[in-house]
Amino acid sequence: MSRQGRDGGRILTERRGRAAYVTLSHPGRLNALSISMWQQLERIFGELSSDTELRCVVLSGEGGNFAAGADIGEFPQARADIDGVMHYHLQVIAPALKAIAACRHPVVARIEGVCVGGGLEIASQCDLRIAARSSRFGVPINKLGFPMAPDEMQGLLALAGRAATLEILLEGRVFDADEAMSKGLLTRVVPDADLGADMDRLVGRLEKGAAMAARLNKQMVARLSSSTESLSEAELRSFFSYAPSRDHREGVDAFLAGREPVFSGD
Amino acid sequence: MSRQGRDGGRILTERRGRAAYVTLSHPGRLNALSISMWQQLERIFGELSSDTELRCVVLSGEGGNFAAGADIGEFPQARADIDGVMHYHLQVIAPALKAIAACRHPVVARIEGVCVGGGLEIASQCDLRIAARSSRFGVPINKLGFPMAPDEMQGLLALAGRAATLEILLEGRVFDADEAMSKGLLTRVVPDADLGADMDRLVGRLEKGAAMAARLNKQMVARLSSSTESLSEAELRSFFSYAPSRDHREGVDAFLAGREPVFSGD
Amino acid sequence: MSRQGRDGGRILTERRGRAAYVTLSHPGRLNALSISMWQQLERIFGELSSDTELRCVVLSGEGGNFAAGADIGEFPQARADIDGVMHYHLQVIAPALKAIAACRHPVVARIEGVCVGGGLEIASQCDLRIAARSSRFGVPINKLGFPMAPDEMQGLLALAGRAATLEILLEGRVFDADEAMSKGLLTRVVPDADLGADMDRLVGRLEKGAAMAARLNKQMVARLSSSTESLSEAELRSFFSYAPSRDHREGVDAFLAGREPVFSGD
Repeated sequence: MSRQGRDGGRILTERRGRAAYVTLSHPGRLNALSISMWQQLERIFGELSSDTELRCVVLSGEGGNFAAGADIGEFPQARADIDGVMHYHLQVIAPALKAIAACRHPVVARIEGVCVGGGLEIASQCDLRIAARSSRFGVPINKLGFPMAPDEMQGLLALAGRAATLEILLEGRVFDADEAMSKGLLTRVVPDADLGADMDRLVGRLEKGAAMAARLNKQMVARLSSSTESLSEAELRSFFSYAPSRDHREGVDAFLAGREPVFSGD
Repeated sequence: MSRQGRDGGRILTERRGRAAYVTLSHPGRLNALSISMWQQLERIFGELSSDTELRCVVLSGEGGNFAAGADIGEFPQARADIDGVMHYHLQVIAPALKAIAACRHPVVARIEGVCVGGGLEIASQCDLRIAARSSRFGVPINKLGFPMAPDEMQGLLALAGRAATLEILLEGRVFDADEAMSKGLLTRVVPDADLGADMDRLVGRLEKGAAMAARLNKQMVARLSSSTESLSEAELRSFFSYAPSRDHREGVDAFLAGREPVFSGD
Repeated sequence: MSRQGRDGGRILTERRGRAAYVTLSHPGRLNALSISMWQQLERIFGELSSDTELRCVVLSGEGGNFAAGADIGEFPQARADIDGVMHYHLQVIAPALKAIAACRHPVVARIEGVCVGGGLEIASQCDLRIAARSSRFGVPINKLGFPMAPDEMQGLLALAGRAATLEILLEGRVFDADEAMSKGLLTRVVPDADLGADMDRLVGRLEKGAAMAARLNKQMVARLSSSTESLSEAELRSFFSYAPSRDHREGVDAFLAGREPVFSGD
């Protein structure tokens, strides 16, 4: 792996049916995330979130790896002093992670190969994480001499809790998919050969599901997880405004008629 | 399964020793919860909570299943518009779930067969969940075209966390007891043939334990889990007011004498 | 086990390299924690925290057991009424647990044999918990007739969540290391014969890591876990003040040069 590469890397996007496929691409660098890639991620997920025709987004890495983390070759210049460091973490990485989390559609991470550091931070912001059994995880940040930034740590804490998060950071070990699963970092682990088929089934289920229900579930899980404050009357009324939707009627009608529902998304 | 049944179902209660047995009963409907059943649950758990002679409550379903969820046959009439939907979730289901959670005695869910949708919501409010290995779990709500209501979601979040809760809702899969256990939804899984004996042992332990200690543990776990605010002096003094109780003295005396304690509940 | 022992027990400390070894010692009593021992723990962890030469602290029990809990022989005198009970839990135990949690260095619990009651409360405050496979866990408090105090319960809740914490308290079972692991109480379980070697490797990794990064990771995990309030500008600036440190530069330089970093701790 070249550690001084300057080509910058790219985020590829493709649309198939009602699913968007977003691919981290930094050839020869295990898809290490450059500043340009973080910025593209923020922009792309903002656009995808606005596209109401979509039903899900699949995020993966090119060439058999998810991502090896941030592009450390950029650190000496971009993170030269405290202002640079704060800008890099708070204005470059944090907004990209936030855009993924805030995407209105379900976002699925398709994980194979290396998923460490910034790669794991990105995967942690997705709604579902499906990993090939041979994939590998960790945050070997203890060798880099600096701590994980707060917005990046939040993603791990939400999945793995404080004890496992601290273990990952203090030990800096790279571990396998089964251990990642037992730490809460993954939705499921599948044999390498089955990853494609599992993803296709999952995307199929998400495409056929009721889009508004999925979005409201995603929003409410985030709301209830981020605050212990009671929901206001306005929040409740906004949530339950799904009542007169066509999909709501179709779902109940189909169930009572014993047939498969056909959701239109409105 | 008849989807238009109108008999409404019932909640059965029985008292054996110092344990109350509450049974969801909707024959031929996999114990689907009708509005009348939710309302009975609220009333019954309120009454059981006031009965200071009790040491525990066991909640199960009749005929080999826990419960298949809400009675969808009532939806077209009861959930016809936003006011109906809000009333159904906030005034019918939420108070029933709250009454189970607020019951001062330990509540044990005895789970076999189907435990999905509203059935899983009910089980999530219990303090302990013992499941037969062949039982099945899930929230196949994505086919019904509407999201899980906030008060119902809270129960799943408290057990499974945000990632597994969202997975359950977005995928809508029905899964087995071992997967439910690994998601945090269960206390333990036992072979089908051992469920009765395990429950009897558990009820025996709860009947012999110190009742006030169990109640205070239950209250404090709920308090510390629902707020990050420090305990007030008044809350601390109220909690520690167990100090002069007979059971507290008996427990310490029995330990120091090397004998089994005999708790009187005061 | 003598239940009326009056020798009081001791906390032993030893320094080897840049690691401190703290040992719970109450011979013939399974290291049951006396008031004197809780007070020594508070003082010792306060001192260790101030020693900036240290890289980690290992906490273990003497003679093949971690600790059997509080020294109940002291209860009749020390916990005679509500004021005594409140003083014992809020002024004796809570400050000791807090001192362990607040130690600026990573604290590792090395667990073998019995780790129950107050022993488990102590282990829960450590950052990493490595347990021999034959070790045993639980809080058999239901036989003592009183509930777990709030500050002690917080440690379990942070690791095991509300359902498993309540299960442990309501059932009062003693369980093995694999079950403790599945409940989230442990970092990992190792064969009894491998415990020493695993600890040595772990201590070696912590000694070689960047100390400031470890401390900041520990502080930030605690901060983000204890409050949902956003970080203030001052908190962010304080956190990112690691930027000009020598270790930060060394870590990045070493990575880019493809060599092992040598951290100096400043």
